[in-house]
Amino acid sequence: MNRITHLLQVQYPIIQGGMIWNSGWELVSAVSNNGGLGLLGSGSMYPDTLKDHILKCKKATHKPFGVNLPLFYPDIEEHIKIIIEEKVPIVFTSAGSPKIYTSFFQKHKIKVVHVVSSLKFALKSEEAGVDAIVAEGFEAGGHNGIDETTTFCLIPNIKKHVSVPLIAAGGIATGAQILAAQVLGAEGVQIGSRFAATIEASSHEKFKQEIIKTKEGDTQLTLKELIPVRLIKNKFYYDVVKAYGNKASKEQLEQLLGRGRAKKGMFEGDIEEGELEVGQSSALIDEILSVKDVFKQLISEYDKAISNAYSL
Amino acid sequence: MNRITHLLQVQYPIIQGGMIWNSGWELVSAVSNNGGLGLLGSGSMYPDTLKDHILKCKKATHKPFGVNLPLFYPDIEEHIKIIIEEKVPIVFTSAGSPKIYTSFFQKHKIKVVHVVSSLKFALKSEEAGVDAIVAEGFEAGGHNGIDETTTFCLIPNIKKHVSVPLIAAGGIATGAQILAAQVLGAEGVQIGSRFAATIEASSHEKFKQEIIKTKEGDTQLTLKELIPVRLIKNKFYYDVVKAYGNKASKEQLEQLLGRGRAKKGMFEGDIEEGELEVGQSSALIDEILSVKDVFKQLISEYDKAISNAYSL
Repeated sequence: MNRITHLLQVQYPIIQGGMIWNSGWELVSAVSNNGGLGLLGSGSMYPDTLKDHILKCKKATHKPFGVNLPLFYPDIEEHIKIIIEEKVPIVFTSAGSPKIYTSFFQKHKIKVVHVVSSLKFALKSEEAGVDAIVAEGFEAGGHNGIDETTTFCLIPNIKKHVSVPLIAAGGIATGAQILAAQVLGAEGVQIGSRFAATIEASSHEKFKQEIIKTKEGDTQLTLKELIPVRLIKNKFYYDVVKAYGNKASKEQLEQLLGRGRAKKGMFEGDIEEGELEVGQSSALIDEILSVKDVFKQLISEYDKAISNAYSL
Repeated sequence: MNRITHLLQVQYPIIQGGMIWNSGWELVSAVSNNGGLGLLGSGSMYPDTLKDHILKCKKATHKPFGVNLPLFYPDIEEHIKIIIEEKVPIVFTSAGSPKIYTSFFQKHKIKVVHVVSSLKFALKSEEAGVDAIVAEGFEAGGHNGIDETTTFCLIPNIKKHVSVPLIAAGGIATGAQILAAQVLGAEGVQIGSRFAATIEASSHEKFKQEIIKTKEGDTQLTLKELIPVRLIKNKFYYDVVKAYGNKASKEQLEQLLGRGRAKKGMFEGDIEEGELEVGQSSALIDEILSVKDVFKQLISEYDKAISNAYSL
């Protein structure tokens, strides 16, 4: 029992990242039922869809679950209304200022965890009164920070300057890495790609197959002028590279990215033309498992790592 | 005692990276005298200078020390001759194929450790018969790999596929990070920036001051068309950015970098016009210490981290 398991009321300090197009009620409830914290990925849901997933999640688990809420999304106000009405106990906010909604959620007895990628925003989050911080390194899949600070450097630096409970994210797919993150100063971990490659994830089977095929060096952080995003180097990525070669403007890049690329890749399974958001940890992921088996594996790897550490 | 301390005949599995313009005999002998392995940075030395530093190092310590040998340097053959004549017991080779010199050195009873930044080259190094591998993550200062794989993802992946003893590098400046690197699968660590900011480093005082001033986000990996290098974002760096904005050719970038930028920055202390090679770990380095005090600090932080780990 540490501050994170106490705060989130979970058995293990393992949080499943609320990844767009991956994190529906089946994944989320499976993670919560196995002792972690599942997060619905509201960033790819219309308000009605979010409500539907919350209701289904409540039926599928009696354990706590949460919603990941990217603050810059157009439907944000409606999402917030639903979360409060449905008494979701935890939100993970990201991609926006923690000052705007933190105390508002807390007045409704909702715990607020804010996602950051730098010490600067960790300090701002602490000042805004968040209950915990997720610090996400450069190796993470999907949206990322501009400073490119890695998990290995980010976690000890935030731990040194911030006293709010700290959750490490970015690059974590094994139990040994969970222990390493704790050694660096985290009290919990948020895991993305490993949970995207599960039977329960709502993403397309072809996308899951791509994750397990992905080797070291096959992902790249790009589109830094818009929002930096780490993705698999597929045809769409090389089209982006070509656009850079032609000195594309920000507007041209926006047009290339379009609105539907993430859905096309991860949900519809168009692995050539779609955007496949995956972290560097994909090199460590070799098979699609059930959530239950992911937990078994993480815990057995963790136990092995800690017994190895005794002999150091 | 593990495979690395046994191989290198050192008390601690802590290696000081052979950084150009920083790693002369004073730093190297101080590291070896304090129980680690010091490495001369031959990449910034003419053959005569290297010989001089080896001789001085031998006078200053009876413990083992080594030479870091970037294989693409013009004076490589003369450097090798001197290393063999002077019976330096260990070389760390980098920036070239491990196949060319490994068995040659080993015939002369010299241990060979090769530096890589990807699993692919780790496998090639194992095949070439190296005695150990340094795997260096994206967060490292100075020259770096093109795949941008971070220490947190690189180490477990190499550990999984390679059985040669593994030394982690990139982003390491604290004792807790040493333990984390071991948990990820390394048997030793190579540390750069923390040793550059010591009294004994041969670099300019102004450069050392810049390291301790550097905060998170103040370094960047750039010049990927030539050899990717992580450096402090100073005037020289922004000149590079400007050149990119003007669509500079590879030749123009080469011209901008010139031959003397690294010397100018790190050895002569021109912090505006010089190239200041520093890792992301600089955000964790707040003071210039003696090598003795760095070891004291690393070991006390390590002991604290391991006693914290017992309670996990």
